[in-house]
Amino acid sequence: MCPKYFLGRLAKNSPPGRVILFRSVESFLRPQTIAIVGASETGGAGWPKGLYENFKHEDFPARVYLVNPRRDELWGRKVYPDFASLPEKIDLAVVIIPAEAIPGVLAEGAEAGLRNALIYASRFGEGGDDVGAERAAELRDICDRTGLRISGPNCMGAISLPERLLFYPTSRVRGLPLGSVGVVFQSGGTFQFWLEQGAARGLGYSYAVSSGNELDLDMADYINFLVDDDHTRVIACMAEGVSRPDALMAAVERAFEADKPVLMLKVGHSAAGQAAAQSHTGALATDHHVFTAMCRKFGVVPVDTLDALIEMSLAFSAGRLPHGDRVALVGYSGGAKGLFLDIAETDGVSMPDFTPETQAVLREHIDAGVPTSNPLDTGAGLARRFPEFAEVAKIVAQDPNIDMVSVQGQLPLAEGTAGDPDLFRQIRDSTDKPVVAHNRMSQNINDAGRAFQAAAGIPFLQRLPEVATTLKALAAYAERRRRGIPPFAADKVSLDPDAAVEDVLAGHGISGPKSAFASNAAGVGDKALGVGFPVAVKIVSPQAVHKTEVRGVALNLASPEDAVAAAQAMSDRLLAAEPGAVVEGFLIQQMVDGLEVIVGVRDDPQFGAVLALGIGGVMVEAMRDVAFRLLPVTDEDVGDMINELRAKAVLGAFRGAAPRDVDALVAAVVGLSNSWPALQDRISDIEINPMMVGAEGEGVVAADIRSLSRDQN
Amino acid sequence: MCPKYFLGRLAKNSPPGRVILFRSVESFLRPQTIAIVGASETGGAGWPKGLYENFKHEDFPARVYLVNPRRDELWGRKVYPDFASLPEKIDLAVVIIPAEAIPGVLAEGAEAGLRNALIYASRFGEGGDDVGAERAAELRDICDRTGLRISGPNCMGAISLPERLLFYPTSRVRGLPLGSVGVVFQSGGTFQFWLEQGAARGLGYSYAVSSGNELDLDMADYINFLVDDDHTRVIACMAEGVSRPDALMAAVERAFEADKPVLMLKVGHSAAGQAAAQSHTGALATDHHVFTAMCRKFGVVPVDTLDALIEMSLAFSAGRLPHGDRVALVGYSGGAKGLFLDIAETDGVSMPDFTPETQAVLREHIDAGVPTSNPLDTGAGLARRFPEFAEVAKIVAQDPNIDMVSVQGQLPLAEGTAGDPDLFRQIRDSTDKPVVAHNRMSQNINDAGRAFQAAAGIPFLQRLPEVATTLKALAAYAERRRRGIPPFAADKVSLDPDAAVEDVLAGHGISGPKSAFASNAAGVGDKALGVGFPVAVKIVSPQAVHKTEVRGVALNLASPEDAVAAAQAMSDRLLAAEPGAVVEGFLIQQMVDGLEVIVGVRDDPQFGAVLALGIGGVMVEAMRDVAFRLLPVTDEDVGDMINELRAKAVLGAFRGAAPRDVDALVAAVVGLSNSWPALQDRISDIEINPMMVGAEGEGVVAADIRSLSRDQN
Repeated sequence: MCPKYFLGRLAKNSPPGRVILFRSVESFLRPQTIAIVGASETGGAGWPKGLYENFKHEDFPARVYLVNPRRDELWGRKVYPDFASLPEKIDLAVVIIPAEAIPGVLAEGAEAGLRNALIYASRFGEGGDDVGAERAAELRDICDRTGLRISGPNCMGAISLPERLLFYPTSRVRGLPLGSVGVVFQSGGTFQFWLEQGAARGLGYSYAVSSGNELDLDMADYINFLVDDDHTRVIACMAEGVSRPDALMAAVERAFEADKPVLMLKVGHSAAGQAAAQSHTGALATDHHVFTAMCRKFGVVPVDTLDALIEMSLAFSAGRLPHGDRVALVGYSGGAKGLFLDIAETDGVSMPDFTPETQAVLREHIDAGVPTSNPLDTGAGLARRFPEFAEVAKIVAQDPNIDMVSVQGQLPLAEGTAGDPDLFRQIRDSTDKPVVAHNRMSQNINDAGRAFQAAAGIPFLQRLPEVATTLKALAAYAERRRRGIPPFAADKVSLDPDAAVEDVLAGHGISGPKSAFASNAAGVGDKALGVGFPVAVKIVSPQAVHKTEVRGVALNLASPEDAVAAAQAMSDRLLAAEPGAVVEGFLIQQMVDGLEVIVGVRDDPQFGAVLALGIGGVMVEAMRDVAFRLLPVTDEDVGDMINELRAKAVLGAFRGAAPRDVDALVAAVVGLSNSWPALQDRISDIEINPMMVGAEGEGVVAADIRSLSRDQN
Repeated sequence: MCPKYFLGRLAKNSPPGRVILFRSVESFLRPQTIAIVGASETGGAGWPKGLYENFKHEDFPARVYLVNPRRDELWGRKVYPDFASLPEKIDLAVVIIPAEAIPGVLAEGAEAGLRNALIYASRFGEGGDDVGAERAAELRDICDRTGLRISGPNCMGAISLPERLLFYPTSRVRGLPLGSVGVVFQSGGTFQFWLEQGAARGLGYSYAVSSGNELDLDMADYINFLVDDDHTRVIACMAEGVSRPDALMAAVERAFEADKPVLMLKVGHSAAGQAAAQSHTGALATDHHVFTAMCRKFGVVPVDTLDALIEMSLAFSAGRLPHGDRVALVGYSGGAKGLFLDIAETDGVSMPDFTPETQAVLREHIDAGVPTSNPLDTGAGLARRFPEFAEVAKIVAQDPNIDMVSVQGQLPLAEGTAGDPDLFRQIRDSTDKPVVAHNRMSQNINDAGRAFQAAAGIPFLQRLPEVATTLKALAAYAERRRRGIPPFAADKVSLDPDAAVEDVLAGHGISGPKSAFASNAAGVGDKALGVGFPVAVKIVSPQAVHKTEVRGVALNLASPEDAVAAAQAMSDRLLAAEPGAVVEGFLIQQMVDGLEVIVGVRDDPQFGAVLALGIGGVMVEAMRDVAFRLLPVTDEDVGDMINELRAKAVLGAFRGAAPRDVDALVAAVVGLSNSWPALQDRISDIEINPMMVGAEGEGVVAADIRSLSRDQN
């Protein structure tokens, strides 16, 4: 048994001294003693009876007691009036009484040694209800004082399949198979439906929790438990808000280190969606980009739809990871091949050609006139000669250009109608690469299909778009495993607290345009030569401030003569307009040419420092074409960010312009990341806009640096 | 009976004099007499027997004959050696003999009065096989000479459910229900699987054809047939290439005028996908943007996935169209609500608030604390009190802000387990707006579910992303019906064949920047005043051509003095560099400020003139942020195009810039469209890049106009 509390490991990215507290859910999900509080035949919409029947159905895997002060006996059992009168201490109370009565009853229970309570009811402050919020505060106070742990409220309970315990009020969840997927959903209704559909597709579960409003125990605690649970290999989550971001990061980092993929469907991309999430869970909804950046950092697999969460659970449960992102598709339908190519291009799935050697071998196995390209369409003939088709798939799986193989496959609706599942298993066993089967669209799955899939030993995925995203997710997770979670390079930076922001950045290789100062117009020419043409010249005079009519700035000057003439002209205009004006001199600045990039860091209140990178000035904002990562970032991360940008083409040779200095851009962005530890105590935001990216070999220039001091916040 | 050939109606957009020929498929899909050519017990991979068994299973709805020169009797029937020996003329020969033998046999058949042949085999020139291509040419020649019509080759046949005729070689398609969806797929394997899955979801079919390589009969012919068929209400298509673009446009225009929605899944967005489509069908694959533009023009509903094609077939079969695009979602799951909001924001689904009146009425029906916003999450309580939930849905359906209603609903897997389908029917009957049910993810559907859906009388859609795209498609189709298909405004344009391109454009309100000419430097100031500042000045001299070192262009001149000085300076520099140079004068041109837009028209060889519109110069190309339409376009069309652009935000008040003159932009784009009839005989492409869009009221300027003469092609 785990202790009731324990300190979580610090996430590597956490500031020194920050402590993460996990709460143990051991005695909640593996209780020895259970009390049904509010036990009655028909009350509580039948939920107390539903819970009892579920325990009874499994022949009472734990000792179950009934509590209700208004009854003496029920279902042939003694009913106790309160916790104090029970013959032993209770690990878990499942509570089905009116919300008003819950704080009093749980206070009494905690007094009597109650360890956990599961509250289904709502009305604890959701949607801005003051009385409910007071009730929630009372419960939190009980937790703090007594160490009672609460799951919920506003949830549909939980399921402990290794213990055969269903803390769930209806019979619909009976029969869910034991397996390796641990599940944490905040939404109760979606939870049950997803579990059912997942089971229909062949998923099995270890523990599944609908965490509701997370008044006390939260997603981080449940994930932390699943990391240590031996049954659990994959953790599937649906989140609407994040109660404790630090704890969540620490939990998913533990999962990553244990090589248990966390699949995360996060609701609330949209402003309106975030509002919906807030009112539903009462937890603070989080910005989607930052959340996704957090996922990337810790190897959490972001998931877009409930259906994709099933496909990814199937694929990750299979246990193999690819060595790269290169996909081969082997099928017998030209239509499906064309559809997948469209999806692959849109989604950026890597589908290289097979090696000439592979193509030569394939040539001997497939019909003349059928191309040996990837995706491979063997033609309908081989669909009817499946052993030969399986041979073709094995040949493809051996290709060194290929990291994963998806084989067309459709599960039978009746036994014995779809060939031999062992052929799929043979394809799998011929390689250590991930092998999945793909069906071009949704299909019904029944017992025959599930048995076939189990015998085949590979996941049968549905719908080509989900096949593409799932294979990409396998590759991204594997890549994160190879790279690891980068720690802050805190030892590499000077932490001089008085250094100017610009100097800190310069120490990490980020500089502004070259500039010089000349005390008179005649001296501007030489200084401009030193800076390099073209230059801008600006008059420096107390009288020239805010006086645009003297035209005190000249741009794009191309020669020493032009620079001197421009300086003299603006000096003349100033003296003509303001006789007696003092000309202190002239600022000469290199005119920076190049591609405009925006790069910045801001300190997110939930997940910490977030780096943003976009190409193209004002247009980038209009098009929201920006990539995000949590700090720190490596060269590889920045390369990935650039690849995510729709506008990335302009960094290459584009419309007659030379290719840009991408290496210098990457170095500057990594430099900004590395500079953050020296800056974060003073500033909350920094933006370089524009960063000008020169042609290859010409480097980058931080044309404008702006930061927001923490004092200004 | 229709005649064998008939002239199609001209598409409104077709140039005068162009004739569209449809081939009748009447005697193919409704034959009185059928010959199985290649009849044998075990030959042809069992296909001849499969076909015969399918005819027999339905008690021979047509007169069936067997043809095989190497047999006398089979299945208790006489076998004929050839067509000439048959007792009557044959409407349809289903042909299962080696490809090599087919041309000879069909030539003999045509001689004997054979009207149609269905060829399943491949090897007619797919994948660049020369012998096969010769074979195909032979068949085309027979068609031309004799009027024989051929369906296929390289297909899986067809199904005529009103006639109970399955021209399909296996028993798997038996039991497909009669209904209102007509189906044309080029891909054979996907065809059958889609039909099965659609039927599992409750779709019924009229006629379904796998058109294969379309050596003769093509998708346009089949669509044309379905338009006239009384059973068919919706036409679902999957296309890989388009054999006859003109005919396809004429067919879908006929479908539009008959109010039979055509749903079109087009394979081949990607370059690689197009190659796949080409090798599979042998038909010319088409550019995706142009194809989608064609769909928009003729009210064809573009579809992205096979699953979405089922959802859309269900939704369009229900027969109601909305009066606008405003969606209400009514459900009992907060999780589903949040997920849909995310999708709605990403996909641009319009979800306005309910009126205050509606919200007041809702307030009386839903729990306190539950928001009365759209999407409406009634809370889990009402999910268990479905009659009350149905009342809430009826209230929402009455809201004048709402055009369509989607109600959360899940089909039962066993009868009597999911409440009363009549409550869904009551919601539908309370309004004339489209009402659908949405399930948040895929689910298995069995007889109980199909019966429930039929009793409910509304489509039960699966997966929230598909629900969003389907409701948007209903709205877009309805909007196209309101607008109609715009005819070319041929009468509005001057067709003077000698007018310069610029003059034609000017006649439609599209002008370049203002300019003037001064014969000497001193005159530049007045001319510049007339043009309006800022101006550019350019020296005009035979000696100044290509001589950048004399700096013969000055930009951004802000006053008459600056303009004169700049002109004088460049004249001085030229004369210093080239003594004796002749200065003819100076060109003064208005410096055009504004937002850069690209607009152009190109003549697509398949679908005709295509208009492209993008915002933002080089960036727009890098980001491929361009909208396309077939000509002609109206104000509304151009408004839609602008709304499709990701960069559209920069047209509004953006980052301190004033809102742009969108009305002038729309007028200019419509002007370009209207000018096309006067230009199309001379030029094949025209591009205005950039078109500069000024602030509101300032208009647009065609800064650079380039066109490609047809002589240059």
